[in-house]
Amino acid sequence: MKIIQERFSIKTKGFNDCVDLTDILTQTLHASRIQSGLIHIFIPGSTAGVTTIEYESGAVADLKAAIARMAPENMHYNHDARWGDGNGFSHVRSALIGPSLTVPVADGRPVLGTWQQVILIDCDNRPRNRSCMITVMGI
Amino acid sequence: MKIIQERFSIKTKGFNDCVDLTDILTQTLHASRIQSGLIHIFIPGSTAGVTTIEYESGAVADLKAAIARMAPENMHYNHDARWGDGNGFSHVRSALIGPSLTVPVADGRPVLGTWQQVILIDCDNRPRNRSCMITVMGI
Amino acid sequence: MKIIQERFSIKTKGFNDCVDLTDILTQTLHASRIQSGLIHIFIPGSTAGVTTIEYESGAVADLKAAIARMAPENMHYNHDARWGDGNGFSHVRSALIGPSLTVPVADGRPVLGTWQQVILIDCDNRPRNRSCMITVMGI
Repeated sequence: MKIIQERFSIKTKGFNDCVDLTDILTQTLHASRIQSGLIHIFIPGSTAGVTTIEYESGAVADLKAAIARMAPENMHYNHDARWGDGNGFSHVRSALIGPSLTVPVADGRPVLGTWQQVILIDCDNRPRNRSCMITVMGI
Repeated sequence: MKIIQERFSIKTKGFNDCVDLTDILTQTLHASRIQSGLIHIFIPGSTAGVTTIEYESGAVADLKAAIARMAPENMHYNHDARWGDGNGFSHVRSALIGPSLTVPVADGRPVLGTWQQVILIDCDNRPRNRSCMITVMGI
Repeated sequence: MKIIQERFSIKTKGFNDCVDLTDILTQTLHASRIQSGLIHIFIPGSTAGVTTIEYESGAVADLKAAIARMAPENMHYNHDARWGDGNGFSHVRSALIGPSLTVPVADGRPVLGTWQQVILIDCDNRPRNRSCMITVMGI
């Protein structure tokens, strides 16, 4: 049983910017030579999340709109009132999406659907250099 | 440390159909003879998700209604405008629920609450044969 | 490769009470002496969830409000109509948040952002003694 960890830096635009992580994931997995197990993706930080979607501009726009409905930009946030960061909506959105995703690995590949990509959603209110931690565990 | 993987096919009705996976999970775990570790459930595909709930018709109906409020069927979706699939709401719902769940294993059993079942939610707009990948990792 | 499991009991007030689990997590990890791998947090039970947020009263209040918007207390729930528990909203909220979170471990520490804490959200309609299961897997 092996554990491989890699940390990546990803440039984002904030404001629900969705970045496809599937290639990074697959490359990390191939380099690890692990054939069977789990690959785990985590975003250290409280204003971004990770999930899967069919990564085409329509579905991505629809997801962004739904996330904005759950925690709109233009309403009162106690976080902003207290700290003046202006990114109260970013914290709420990220907590609801969650920073963690685990994908099975079989035959040396991530077991994803044909139209299913792993995405980072950056909910912050400015461009960011995001850290993304990938852990592969298996044989 | 062992890794056991099993893939199951599950018939669903789509439209937020919720299927209880707890028995499949428990049987896969027993067959693996793993006593301590983690059991991971993943739905390959971009129009279904996995979570836990008390699997009784009332709570399940309430969950379906809440998911429908987050991404209603009868609104504009860019995914549909672009591809004509008619399942833009399915993609958004699935991305929000997430395709991945990990449950601890202790004494050879999944550590779930008494009233807590693991469910697949199929958000697609038609019946599907769903693939479900279960990975058990432990000793 | 080692597996360490610890179960904790946590007092909560219910009604979206958010409890910071980061110290418990870090202490369990240190005691395990595992340097590299994954730490998994799970809430057995169908009326609580786990996620991450910047644990300060403003952001926590904003998250509670968003969760309440997703499944308000004062609406009809089929679960309540059927069982009279009065906590239909708790079940829906918990299913949407999810009971499971996995955090990477590197250099013997959980890889969290500076302002990112792991929280238990108790969605039930009364104070509870919550069980929380922590599993550390790694080397």
